Amino acid sequence: MTTTVQETELRYPIGKFDFDAPIREADYPKFIAAIAETPGALRSAVAGLARDQLETRYRPGGWTVKQLVHHVPDSHMNAYTRFKLALTEDEPTIKPYDEAAWAELPDSRKVPIEVSLDLLDALHLRWVALLRSMDEADFNRGLRHPEHPRVLTLKQILALYAWHGRHHVAHITSLRKREGW
Amino acid sequence: MTTTVQETELRYPIGKFDFDAPIREADYPKFIAAIAETPGALRSAVAGLARDQLETRYRPGGWTVKQLVHHVPDSHMNAYTRFKLALTEDEPTIKPYDEAAWAELPDSRKVPIEVSLDLLDALHLRWVALLRSMDEADFNRGLRHPEHPRVLTLKQILALYAWHGRHHVAHITSLRKREGW
Amino acid sequence: MTTTVQETELRYPIGKFDFDAPIREADYPKFIAAIAETPGALRSAVAGLARDQLETRYRPGGWTVKQLVHHVPDSHMNAYTRFKLALTEDEPTIKPYDEAAWAELPDSRKVPIEVSLDLLDALHLRWVALLRSMDEADFNRGLRHPEHPRVLTLKQILALYAWHGRHHVAHITSLRKREGW
Amino acid sequence: MTTTVQETELRYPIGKFDFDAPIREADYPKFIAAIAETPGALRSAVAGLARDQLETRYRPGGWTVKQLVHHVPDSHMNAYTRFKLALTEDEPTIKPYDEAAWAELPDSRKVPIEVSLDLLDALHLRWVALLRSMDEADFNRGLRHPEHPRVLTLKQILALYAWHGRHHVAHITSLRKREGW
Repeated sequence: MTTTVQETELRYPIGKFDFDAPIREADYPKFIAAIAETPGALRSAVAGLARDQLETRYRPGGWTVKQLVHHVPDSHMNAYTRFKLALTEDEPTIKPYDEAAWAELPDSRKVPIEVSLDLLDALHLRWVALLRSMDEADFNRGLRHPEHPRVLTLKQILALYAWHGRHHVAHITSLRKREGW
Repeated sequence: MTTTVQETELRYPIGKFDFDAPIREADYPKFIAAIAETPGALRSAVAGLARDQLETRYRPGGWTVKQLVHHVPDSHMNAYTRFKLALTEDEPTIKPYDEAAWAELPDSRKVPIEVSLDLLDALHLRWVALLRSMDEADFNRGLRHPEHPRVLTLKQILALYAWHGRHHVAHITSLRKREGW
Repeated sequence: MTTTVQETELRYPIGKFDFDAPIREADYPKFIAAIAETPGALRSAVAGLARDQLETRYRPGGWTVKQLVHHVPDSHMNAYTRFKLALTEDEPTIKPYDEAAWAELPDSRKVPIEVSLDLLDALHLRWVALLRSMDEADFNRGLRHPEHPRVLTLKQILALYAWHGRHHVAHITSLRKREGW
Repeated sequence: MTTTVQETELRYPIGKFDFDAPIREADYPKFIAAIAETPGALRSAVAGLARDQLETRYRPGGWTVKQLVHHVPDSHMNAYTRFKLALTEDEPTIKPYDEAAWAELPDSRKVPIEVSLDLLDALHLRWVALLRSMDEADFNRGLRHPEHPRVLTLKQILALYAWHGRHHVAHITSLRKREGW
């Protein structure tokens, strides 16, 4: 149905992430570049939005722009932590978190988005420095997610978060395009 | 000569600023948006560059990428100051500065670019809040530059700095394109 | 022995944290204030240090000042995560991390300390907003640490991190005092 | 009268700046250290203040805490600019600004204080790098202020701003002490 197609497009403006896509060593630099560019891209995506625009849901039933902005560093702090865990332990089982419940906690409503933009800037500078120091053996290290049957490699996590930043930036840029903001 | 054309393109990748172009009230929002987007655009433009890439001149005889990054907040601090002077005094004569000499001062060589990216983020948040509070009468207020024969209006300064941020971002993005970085 | 006393003083300049000290509701504001003040206190503690001073160990066999600065946001990102886990799940078992191994990862050596100071500023603004929204029932929520026999309450974690920030700031300020920096 | 004494104490909690005090080369490091410590000290001074506390005047008829916080980077951007002007021109005449009128402009009311704290962090990192690169001849360079009869040297400006940061931090810390915040 048309509705479903539209819903999928609103929810996945750059498409879904494919965990089964092969990842070659030659792809790492472009994934790292995408992670490096995310904080600037998110900052530009929300630049100049007024208070009521920040409180707008990017799709019916979805998060507000403000919640999206606060979600990104929450998610990427967990991602950065997972890289460090996998680099310092043997296939550690990581602790998932309930992203929907986190996005409803009071700090996501009360704190200005500028704080999370700054958090993301600083976090990605450390993360990218770490990523750029990693060799092929490092990217093949693994971690276990309690809800995934197989070990996930850091190169998969790398590709996932290159996608993840763009995914949420596109939520905001496509909303602004639709709304003419 | 071809060389001259190339030189002009390297130096003015988005064209020169035209002080005589008419500026209508309906244009203000897009100029303000351009100023709001500059810090994120600059941050993404330099994302992931290595130390020696930052030390590369964006054109023969031009500034290094690092000098460019430090120049932008130096220039925009002066611009922000000029807006506040013109809003609180009657056609004040502003103090120009020697941008070439400033770019050679030691802080532009010693300080990590992240510091100037942060400076620009914060400065533009204050500047954009100020711009968004201004009405047509405010944008018609003027200032005198000792080297310009005529009074400059704040709407001209607005258009100038909307151009200025994009101008320097394009120096870096076109360098990266040419170099395949 | 004198040596041991000195070693303990160098390692614990404000004393060890006491997990068994009673914590009353009236104490929360002062603990939250200590967490709020930590980023500014750390920033002032390292202000103006030169590169070789940042590479100095705060005690024989201990971390360098630079490693200390990068450790604080690593630790507090984990702490913030634990608060959110305990607020959104019932007595979750958190994932510990190997802080000694993390401090040897390349980002702690390569990234300027300013990045971690910025990270800490932004992180604590979100954390303090969360803490200020919590009521007594929230502070009595618990989490499980795989290496602790008993459930830890969030009020204990609150007291722990009020201490933790001061503890590491004191490492740096006492080093500067001893060295006359 | 008692009132006057109190007023002076409220207005000048660390005393007035003395332009005639002699400044020796041996004093520069402590002045530079004071400037380096200011952003952290200001950040800690306002840490955890609630919205209505930020709107409180630090003394009857004085600025609110929020206006104070926004004033400091406004003032220090001008100071940094003056250093650069005096280092790149011969005894330039600088452009004063109307600090009272600036503090009433809309950005000082609308922008969260965190933005100005970030601005100050970044600005002082560049300023301190510049100050640490200066030799005795540089500190003896001068500038002209239209309202001062004599040339001011950069060592006097250095001492002035070492005092200025502490002066405004003390406005806030003494208010908190009096109010028991």
